[in-house]
Amino acid sequence: MASLGFFSNESAQRSGAGDNSTAAPAWCQIAQKFTGGIGTKLCAFLYGDGQRPTENVVKEETTSLATNRSCACSKTPCACQKVQTNFSVLHATDLLPACDGEGVTFTFLEQVLDILLDYILKTFDRSTKVIDFHYPDELLEGFNWMLDEQPNTLEDILVTCRTTLKYAVKTGHPRYFNQLSTGLDMVGLAADWLTSTANTNMFTYEIAPVFVLLEYITLKKMREMIGWPGGCGDGIFSPGGAISNMYALLIARYKLFPEVKEKGMAAIPKLIAFTSEHSHFSIKKAAAALGIGTDGVVLIKCDGFVPFFVNATAGTTVYGAFDPLVAIADICNKYKIWMHVDAAWGGGLLMSRKHRWKLNGTDRGNSVTWNPHKMMGVPLQCSALLVREEGLLQNCNQMNACYLFQPDKQYDLSYDTGDKALQCGRHVDIFKLWLMWRAKGTMGFEAQIDKCLELSDYLYNKIRNREGFEMVLDGRPQHTNVCFWYLPHSIRHLPDNEERRSLLMKVAPQIKTRMMSFGTTMVSYQPQGDKVNFFRMVISNPAATQEDIDFLIEEIERLGQDL
Amino acid sequence: MASLGFFSNESAQRSGAGDNSTAAPAWCQIAQKFTGGIGTKLCAFLYGDGQRPTENVVKEETTSLATNRSCACSKTPCACQKVQTNFSVLHATDLLPACDGEGVTFTFLEQVLDILLDYILKTFDRSTKVIDFHYPDELLEGFNWMLDEQPNTLEDILVTCRTTLKYAVKTGHPRYFNQLSTGLDMVGLAADWLTSTANTNMFTYEIAPVFVLLEYITLKKMREMIGWPGGCGDGIFSPGGAISNMYALLIARYKLFPEVKEKGMAAIPKLIAFTSEHSHFSIKKAAAALGIGTDGVVLIKCDGFVPFFVNATAGTTVYGAFDPLVAIADICNKYKIWMHVDAAWGGGLLMSRKHRWKLNGTDRGNSVTWNPHKMMGVPLQCSALLVREEGLLQNCNQMNACYLFQPDKQYDLSYDTGDKALQCGRHVDIFKLWLMWRAKGTMGFEAQIDKCLELSDYLYNKIRNREGFEMVLDGRPQHTNVCFWYLPHSIRHLPDNEERRSLLMKVAPQIKTRMMSFGTTMVSYQPQGDKVNFFRMVISNPAATQEDIDFLIEEIERLGQDL
Repeated sequence: MASLGFFSNESAQRSGAGDNSTAAPAWCQIAQKFTGGIGTKLCAFLYGDGQRPTENVVKEETTSLATNRSCACSKTPCACQKVQTNFSVLHATDLLPACDGEGVTFTFLEQVLDILLDYILKTFDRSTKVIDFHYPDELLEGFNWMLDEQPNTLEDILVTCRTTLKYAVKTGHPRYFNQLSTGLDMVGLAADWLTSTANTNMFTYEIAPVFVLLEYITLKKMREMIGWPGGCGDGIFSPGGAISNMYALLIARYKLFPEVKEKGMAAIPKLIAFTSEHSHFSIKKAAAALGIGTDGVVLIKCDGFVPFFVNATAGTTVYGAFDPLVAIADICNKYKIWMHVDAAWGGGLLMSRKHRWKLNGTDRGNSVTWNPHKMMGVPLQCSALLVREEGLLQNCNQMNACYLFQPDKQYDLSYDTGDKALQCGRHVDIFKLWLMWRAKGTMGFEAQIDKCLELSDYLYNKIRNREGFEMVLDGRPQHTNVCFWYLPHSIRHLPDNEERRSLLMKVAPQIKTRMMSFGTTMVSYQPQGDKVNFFRMVISNPAATQEDIDFLIEEIERLGQDL
Repeated sequence: MASLGFFSNESAQRSGAGDNSTAAPAWCQIAQKFTGGIGTKLCAFLYGDGQRPTENVVKEETTSLATNRSCACSKTPCACQKVQTNFSVLHATDLLPACDGEGVTFTFLEQVLDILLDYILKTFDRSTKVIDFHYPDELLEGFNWMLDEQPNTLEDILVTCRTTLKYAVKTGHPRYFNQLSTGLDMVGLAADWLTSTANTNMFTYEIAPVFVLLEYITLKKMREMIGWPGGCGDGIFSPGGAISNMYALLIARYKLFPEVKEKGMAAIPKLIAFTSEHSHFSIKKAAAALGIGTDGVVLIKCDGFVPFFVNATAGTTVYGAFDPLVAIADICNKYKIWMHVDAAWGGGLLMSRKHRWKLNGTDRGNSVTWNPHKMMGVPLQCSALLVREEGLLQNCNQMNACYLFQPDKQYDLSYDTGDKALQCGRHVDIFKLWLMWRAKGTMGFEAQIDKCLELSDYLYNKIRNREGFEMVLDGRPQHTNVCFWYLPHSIRHLPDNEERRSLLMKVAPQIKTRMMSFGTTMVSYQPQGDKVNFFRMVISNPAATQEDIDFLIEEIERLGQDL
């Protein structure tokens, strides 16, 4: 494996600025602290004398990446044998199901775990960079990522894993605020590893009995949280909020005009869906895909059109704002219009006794999108569509493919969910949510969500009157979104005119570029309507603290002061 | 955690029929064999005296599930301290990002790895059951799966993980033939664990730099395999073949009538898509969703309709048949109709010099669905849509949401793939495919695919003239699908009439029910058209051998002889 340019001295880089790693694995040091001696032993056991092969060792083709597994008791010598696993002569074909592949597999996966543990510890270590940023061309040219005719060794695979993580964005880092989904939950992660290992599909009980039941249980629990009597209704986990929203449009249309399934849009009147200008673009995207057309998603009087769908947003992407759900429900009820609540971002607040009032009226929705992978910190992806009326999902989407869903199976076929889905095979997204809920309890989610909202309050209080900061909206934020401009000295005292606006527009992108170059923190920015580029802070990571908020503010000032 | 009924004596069950596990972890025994002594040490290190807590220990609330981590060198005593990690008093809040949570996290994840390794070894152990089947009510009642207000301990979480896997279907077992996706690839698994740990989203280069580049590289490589000059074109990984097929319909419609995006189906003529009766139901499902209607998917003369889309299947779900791609391409070319090749199942054969001729003509398609999670054994999910024309995906799906895709970022924005997708966030499905390709090389995939086809040939040769077996189709199978009836003695010599058919219809379901009850193997069955329930064998698992095929045949005979 060729390794060029800035990849040529991996270990030197890893001890560079913003990265506190050394030749010994980070968790080795931790383990020593934690276990009072046994850690040293375990490290020695796994890495010989505490030395771990670094990437640049590999570059010497004559050097073998041997993993020394030795018992190195600190005081009394013992008689354990050393084991050498030389991955530079082993290939994927040496792993299970290879004959006698157990040992190599075991050692290989232990090595992988080590790489992952190392990454996890760095993720939560504030002295580690959030990102080691390089431009696409640099990353492409700096390393041989090519796929060849010939196999590569397991050594190459392990090195590649390490390299991949080196340039990954640490989305669980306490100072990563860039997206609505942040954090790295350890129980969720364990559940996701288990899900990968079980490697099955959600479409029938036959091949995913436990996961299907856990989805059933969890969807019911979520409907109870929404407030539907007895948790009745239906639902499905889908690959993300955009698809959940598409499901909502799809079944709303089907509910009104079931003939659309066979005859298409040509057989039914022109439809109009309503949504706010700050709603997620997925509503328009879905309308385009479903043959409604983006022109059918508007806020106009609707002569000649059949209004069939209102999307109410509970927690908008940029401002974190909540639509007036009760008022919308009243109107939808009066005119018999399907009410969908896009609570992809806001849904998590249902877990909080303090904040769930913001979602009052959600229980009157016909369908609700709720993404546990956002505010609840479940690993990506985990998005649910909840539907009040049972049977619609099935009737709308089923194609009766009996080669998948044999009607003469021995068990209760209502547990086969495959025909409800737009997808055929469907990834197991449920286990991580279920296991996290099991581990934290509802109160655990509540505590972590309340903490994030307190932190956003802390941020808001800290910057609303701070020199050089200007809030985009008046009033306290409803969610953890805090939107603000930073004004460098050069424009701070200019009159609010076009010139100032065009200068201000460039500030956030420039600070963001520097931020990524230093790798110290990440926060999103965007324009919205007539408002030029501003920072949108969101907090969904339980690892974040007041200190991290302080750091962000000071970092923006540091990086932006000379602009 | 309450644990009732058949869950009440876990360890007794685990040593029962079809399950060779004992109190010591399976990999402990393996490690001992493999490492010549060090294995004993590692086991002792992790489990004290080789004893691992079993689930029924947990039921005694007074007993703590303590993990004894001791150095237990077999010959010379040493001075290492014992460590007790008592998970029965620890909770998710003790894990990272908790202050000083590193040690607990490390031990917890090691325990999880142990559970997963145990499952992996059982997966490849033919003396282990494929499934420990229970009816939904039994599983629901036998265990407390409920989600509570209060948190559960980490001990409960570990036990739950083990229980979940106990009742999971071992989709990597050499005798699991139930789906098109089978097998458990160790490199793919490692890649999926890494993906979970990196926990990011595909929509921008900013938050997934390496994964975005690897998707770019891999899609190009796949287009080269298809035969598009220079690997030119476009593509995207989607959550499964059904969604990939939906993309194809979507962009084909957009290509012909771009105004559909804004104005919907009302603004364009009635459309007709063609597909074969054996094609996957996802084509009809997509047509229903997109507002074309399932009536718009037919094989009829099309007066007044605009034929816009032909779906050609390369490897049908049941028979594994390949449509005449070259002939279809000629017609599509003549009439300027979009040609889509659904090679979800057959695409893997592109990797085989021996079998790729079956896909001749795919290079003339406008779009191709290819699911590496099927014939190539990549962990679920991994499905690609490849598009010959660049830019269409973007133009068709983009909504210019500048809060996600800021136009003033510092890097080449063509690497931001988010606006091409129907989804907003998109799971990282690329790394497992890329890493497996890297590890095996193209030739490694070729070898494992050729082997699966040889095995299906072996099965075909073995049963085509065997007493009691009857082939559903004449001639050799084109893919690994082998479809056949098993005829018990009671109906073997009946004349081929309605009575025989109604008896035969019940045979496969009965054998399958018994098969799952014994848990020895799993194979799918279904009716198709006028053909009553028959078995559909598919082989996509590199772990399967001739011995497993022999076993399957004999097991069907054993389970079906008295019917």
